[in-house]
Amino acid sequence: MEIIRIPRIMREISRELRAKGKSIGFVPTMGALHEGHLSLIKRAKEENDFTVVSIFVNPTQFAQGEDYDRYPRDVESDKEKLQKIEIDYLFLPDVESLYPQGYSTYVTVEGLSDKLCGKFRPGHFRGVATIVCKLFNIIKPAKAYFGQKDYQQSLIIRRMVEDLNFDIEIIVCPTIREQDGLAMSSRNLYLNEEERKAATVIYKALQEGEKLLKQGAQPVDVNLNMMEILKNEPLVKEIQYAGVFDPLTLEEVKEKQKKYLLAIALKIAETRLIDNLLVEV
Amino acid sequence: MEIIRIPRIMREISRELRAKGKSIGFVPTMGALHEGHLSLIKRAKEENDFTVVSIFVNPTQFAQGEDYDRYPRDVESDKEKLQKIEIDYLFLPDVESLYPQGYSTYVTVEGLSDKLCGKFRPGHFRGVATIVCKLFNIIKPAKAYFGQKDYQQSLIIRRMVEDLNFDIEIIVCPTIREQDGLAMSSRNLYLNEEERKAATVIYKALQEGEKLLKQGAQPVDVNLNMMEILKNEPLVKEIQYAGVFDPLTLEEVKEKQKKYLLAIALKIAETRLIDNLLVEV
Repeated sequence: MEIIRIPRIMREISRELRAKGKSIGFVPTMGALHEGHLSLIKRAKEENDFTVVSIFVNPTQFAQGEDYDRYPRDVESDKEKLQKIEIDYLFLPDVESLYPQGYSTYVTVEGLSDKLCGKFRPGHFRGVATIVCKLFNIIKPAKAYFGQKDYQQSLIIRRMVEDLNFDIEIIVCPTIREQDGLAMSSRNLYLNEEERKAATVIYKALQEGEKLLKQGAQPVDVNLNMMEILKNEPLVKEIQYAGVFDPLTLEEVKEKQKKYLLAIALKIAETRLIDNLLVEV
Repeated sequence: MEIIRIPRIMREISRELRAKGKSIGFVPTMGALHEGHLSLIKRAKEENDFTVVSIFVNPTQFAQGEDYDRYPRDVESDKEKLQKIEIDYLFLPDVESLYPQGYSTYVTVEGLSDKLCGKFRPGHFRGVATIVCKLFNIIKPAKAYFGQKDYQQSLIIRRMVEDLNFDIEIIVCPTIREQDGLAMSSRNLYLNEEERKAATVIYKALQEGEKLLKQGAQPVDVNLNMMEILKNEPLVKEIQYAGVFDPLTLEEVKEKQKKYLLAIALKIAETRLIDNLLVEV
């Protein structure tokens, strides 16, 4: 595994690989790697000649007052995991090299970026679209891999790739869960033992929602049921959204339809967690 | 010369050329080709293995009430000119193929886009940055050519290319002028005989500004002199800006410095015209 820190050098390596007809599979991450990330990387390794993983905690996707400063960073442990899984390149740029003084270009995906998490994290998806656009130009992947846990993000990236005519296939891989159902997330590291236990309520509510939808319940009743479950957990501090949404528009669903997105964002004590399920009835 | 209308096909052709190690020189245009465009194309032909010219009147860079509908379109005459100069590919997409229903991604270069023309054409440079980003992803050029007449545009494109890590060299070519000094522009076609004559005042004012700066005049005095010249032409209807600016920040220049941008935007009757000169003292 080669570690590359300079965007220009990474771009040259990618250019040479592409010129030789080699396909690059790319997994962008913010580090603190868990089994969710590793599942994306395994898939990238299977489907491409070369695999590039980036680790970059992207400041532009954190709003003022969010957890940018305390976001978990453990590059040494991440490197070990990536060595073991045998990737080709780890792209590890610093902030100054990706956002030098005078930086001023941003990519916005309108509409989708204002829904769900976008309502509570102003500028978040602008930061995501911008950094992914930059990384795509540097890495030039044939395929890029994202986790379904960040469903809205994957939808926005797909939209950006189509709109800006990127020659890249976006592959969304299933959410990897702990044994008790909690979706893997770097932010789970913030939870103490009690909070960690309380966090399982999220997947329980999603599962209940799925069961009800499959039984033919009305979306509005599903919303009420999920909310009820979440509110019964005392450590749930702030339910930002929870319920049945349209998987393409992210709008709330009022009438029955064929496909649903069940999605939840809430705080367990101070930690913001999200999760979702796609349901087809 | 091959004419390509479908973005996906153009992208595949470009991908194959790049994979074969061929360099692509790209000249994006809105058609109504004049000697200014042709000078860019000649340069692209000299410096690259293949030359792609696009003709696309980009709706997202026209504000409400601007001249999108009546912008000069003469594709047959343009094709003849391109045949004659022997380019390899003419990319001629329709609006629906570049902005299909549901399109929602935009690229913004903050700061620079709000100065000079940006003050009078809200959203203009967002539209420019967006379409150029799209065309770059479709054409994958090694080098792209822009005219200095649209100086602010070239500055914004350079900034976008650097910020978004595009692997593309931006080349800005000198403004081509009519014998009487008027900068070539597709919009000159809007002018009647009398207006066409009046329009020469723009270059006259720029030349006077250059002369004064080289004589060591204060920028504020240069501004006054240029304004005086423009105001003496009765067909000049609206001076949007005219004077001495910084070539990198586009801010008004108050003190003497080494390099200046002299720039003018005004209306002759109903036709908005722009021009500029870079001056080094």
